[in-house]
Amino acid sequence: MMDLAHLRQRLAAHGQEHLLQFWDVLTEADKRVLYNDLSELDYDEVCGFYKRTVASLNEEQTKLDERMQPIPAEMHGSVTRTPLEKIKDYEEAGLREVSEGHVGVLLLAGGQGTRLGVDYPKGMYDVKLPSRKTLYQLQAERLLRLQILAKEKYGKCGNIPWYIMTSEHTKEPTMDFFARNHYFGLEKENLVVFEQGMLPCFTFDGKIILESPHKVARAPDGNGGLYRALREKNVLEDMERRGIKYVHVYCVDNILVKMADPIFIGYCLSKGANCGAKVVEKAFPTEAVGVVCKVDGLYQVVEYSEITLKTAQKRNPDGRLMFSAGNICNHYFTTEFLRKVVYDYEASMHHHVAKKKIGTVNSDGKTIKPEKPNGIKMEKFVFDVFQFSNTLAVWEVIREDEFAPLKNGDGAEKDTPTTCRHALFSLHHRYLLNAGGTLIDSEGEPLPLIPSPAAAPKCPTTENANTEFNNNDAQKEMRWDECPVVVEISSLVSYAGEGLDKLVANKKFTCPLLLNEPAAKIQV
Amino acid sequence: MMDLAHLRQRLAAHGQEHLLQFWDVLTEADKRVLYNDLSELDYDEVCGFYKRTVASLNEEQTKLDERMQPIPAEMHGSVTRTPLEKIKDYEEAGLREVSEGHVGVLLLAGGQGTRLGVDYPKGMYDVKLPSRKTLYQLQAERLLRLQILAKEKYGKCGNIPWYIMTSEHTKEPTMDFFARNHYFGLEKENLVVFEQGMLPCFTFDGKIILESPHKVARAPDGNGGLYRALREKNVLEDMERRGIKYVHVYCVDNILVKMADPIFIGYCLSKGANCGAKVVEKAFPTEAVGVVCKVDGLYQVVEYSEITLKTAQKRNPDGRLMFSAGNICNHYFTTEFLRKVVYDYEASMHHHVAKKKIGTVNSDGKTIKPEKPNGIKMEKFVFDVFQFSNTLAVWEVIREDEFAPLKNGDGAEKDTPTTCRHALFSLHHRYLLNAGGTLIDSEGEPLPLIPSPAAAPKCPTTENANTEFNNNDAQKEMRWDECPVVVEISSLVSYAGEGLDKLVANKKFTCPLLLNEPAAKIQV
Repeated sequence: MMDLAHLRQRLAAHGQEHLLQFWDVLTEADKRVLYNDLSELDYDEVCGFYKRTVASLNEEQTKLDERMQPIPAEMHGSVTRTPLEKIKDYEEAGLREVSEGHVGVLLLAGGQGTRLGVDYPKGMYDVKLPSRKTLYQLQAERLLRLQILAKEKYGKCGNIPWYIMTSEHTKEPTMDFFARNHYFGLEKENLVVFEQGMLPCFTFDGKIILESPHKVARAPDGNGGLYRALREKNVLEDMERRGIKYVHVYCVDNILVKMADPIFIGYCLSKGANCGAKVVEKAFPTEAVGVVCKVDGLYQVVEYSEITLKTAQKRNPDGRLMFSAGNICNHYFTTEFLRKVVYDYEASMHHHVAKKKIGTVNSDGKTIKPEKPNGIKMEKFVFDVFQFSNTLAVWEVIREDEFAPLKNGDGAEKDTPTTCRHALFSLHHRYLLNAGGTLIDSEGEPLPLIPSPAAAPKCPTTENANTEFNNNDAQKEMRWDECPVVVEISSLVSYAGEGLDKLVANKKFTCPLLLNEPAAKIQV
Repeated sequence: MMDLAHLRQRLAAHGQEHLLQFWDVLTEADKRVLYNDLSELDYDEVCGFYKRTVASLNEEQTKLDERMQPIPAEMHGSVTRTPLEKIKDYEEAGLREVSEGHVGVLLLAGGQGTRLGVDYPKGMYDVKLPSRKTLYQLQAERLLRLQILAKEKYGKCGNIPWYIMTSEHTKEPTMDFFARNHYFGLEKENLVVFEQGMLPCFTFDGKIILESPHKVARAPDGNGGLYRALREKNVLEDMERRGIKYVHVYCVDNILVKMADPIFIGYCLSKGANCGAKVVEKAFPTEAVGVVCKVDGLYQVVEYSEITLKTAQKRNPDGRLMFSAGNICNHYFTTEFLRKVVYDYEASMHHHVAKKKIGTVNSDGKTIKPEKPNGIKMEKFVFDVFQFSNTLAVWEVIREDEFAPLKNGDGAEKDTPTTCRHALFSLHHRYLLNAGGTLIDSEGEPLPLIPSPAAAPKCPTTENANTEFNNNDAQKEMRWDECPVVVEISSLVSYAGEGLDKLVANKKFTCPLLLNEPAAKIQV
């Protein structure tokens, strides 16, 4: 059954014979595993990927400065520069499409929580909100609420199918988790979990890496592996069968993500765009965020490392950075556009190279963790398809309202469970205040606003503070210390602050506050 | 010599007899100390302060929303919205005044480094730059360099006298430190160290607090104690004697402070302002920063806690926050204006109240540290005088270029020695790049820009990173991990990036880089 000679021949043809170096000492079971693993690889394809990727690596890395242009102003909208009535129009248009069942969401969830320090999918992470809801649950409930809003508005209940792209590591736990939790109230058939592809890792000189004597080192093919998976897993077909016309694509780790944001969808519709990017304003020239722009006339996300400081510092006469459209991995695509990408363009998209420390078997058959990068992974990025769009719309939103990614474990300097939790509390506190509610402390005094997630102090030391006097921040300090704001408003109650007036106006609440309809911890 | 009966009488007249409660058990020496301490207090004055301050505390705390107006556009300049030629004009005007000897600087340095965790003045803190220079030395050298620049431009060497307001705790160590360091090259007579006033601390019911059986608890009277000290310590007189017309006032803790910034001075001059505030754009509605604005037609700094969210969220049609002029304690005053403040207005300025945990003697004579605030300090703020200006100019600068305060010890979430150090490295790296230099790693590859001080990762874990793939930040991570940017350019070489071309253009440098004239670690 195992045609070893043939396999050896195929390997030799691509300079990969070393993959069988431990063959003679493997158990029968391990032989079977390795044989299957190696047999199913398409060496022409993966070695071709490797060659193309490495060729790009060796090209002279010239900066893109001269070739860049900002997004034209008429395609760069901003929630801060758009009159409220216009925003309402966008929202209504988006809700209408939701009610018609034309809108789907697609979650990029192939990453394991390595930097976060957990061995399960990030979506299952609980940042310790009062409700103890996980990211997956928060997202599910936002979808549920949005469907209700659309129905209330237009009398029709469109389903928003939720496509979740997982990787080898995250598919099973994700599916189990949703099943165990009864899909958080969603219809089971509206959840479509699929797996992105994996690619072997290569050494710098083109050898596929063995992770153990009978196992090839593999890594997911980047979030841009989406397009290949849309085809190979028949996901695009599923979308089309359901009548989905517009897809919101996003990453799992943003705790504030506005699922299928009707304003964003309505805005993209109004621009007749086949491709859209929700962005935040880049805060300063050297901020580590990619910007959406044009390069040689084609849309692209350019990393800050790809341009010189001079270009990063360029400003418009209004004082804003010329290249300010900071990518937050929140995209809009028409299914029509996705069809073209998947069937016409995907194959021509190059992989990017990431030098990595890759666990590698040594001559004794032991897996060694290298101290320096010893090989490469090949990845595509979800935004690589922007180049194929002729009408890309950029929609700038307010960072504190919509973007707080979970990337690192607590103790890191940013993007931690704590910063995410505080970002959500801050947003929900603002929802409450804007709806006329008040948070009070145990003595009935109104709580101050949270200054910022990042700036929330850890127990400031006010001992001896009578010798401190710069500015008057001492007063604030005392208040924060004593009354941290903890407010969570269930997504089932409000998608983005709407409908709270009747629940909270002129009412006072104490922390921690978890606002679930109908019972809320209302004080006065 | 000690007229105890008279003292008792004075105390009794103000309800402060408890200050002598331990008299009978004090040693003779302690009696002498306490007697002198109590005798010199002006009870009419301090109890008057207390009453006025507490009265303000009990007033209904109404929000200022309805009474606020933004700074008029023509008096709200910004370095990001001003053509380069205009900025050059401002700079030249400022340098001219420096060369004429019309410019002084005044440092607010009364705070001890309590939150920072040191028992000496903050100005003596060394954030561990390659040069190991302290904040005081950095500031001194910027003054030296600026004097040279002015001389090079106008052929006249104006001295910039440096006034340093200390408190009881910081005066001696500050003076010793400068003397020990030969005034860092400044003329000794151009350094004027003086002491701000102290005020007794009160309990909530109006009793002056004893810190120990023979010692009254006192605290500095706020950085707005400046104005009283200008008068009582004859500092204003000294300024006038030297012919100083314009004073730059700033706080000690901003590692990036541009001493006597000629652009700021030139801008204020161009506006005919008697008062100026350098600001940074408030980043988002709930950021904990006071904003410069008008209240009932008078200039004022309004804390975010003094307005409602609705007003904090207001935006101009261009998308910017309506109240965006974030105060960074960087002010400009004409000495003419200071004279009016000091002699006409100062007495009418109210103290602010800060509830504090104040060490208090118990009935056994032991000092107890309370767990909750048990009393108040009375403070004035330096910006309280804005109300007396009829022409106040606001100059908005770029935060990453000019503002990085040192407030907390390492481990806190912001404003630490590490964030300050990184802010300086980032700025100096940008100076280097803008002058045509390059930083390279040990393999000759150019280093990426520092993403941001706050975002600089602490040893990201790249193990197992082959399962991580969101966006392409993995690549960046690897680079940061291996090559942190460490660049310091001596202020004696460059005040704000100028004059570096001849030293660095087309040259490559490795880190750590300390650029001192003439020898620099130049590689290629």
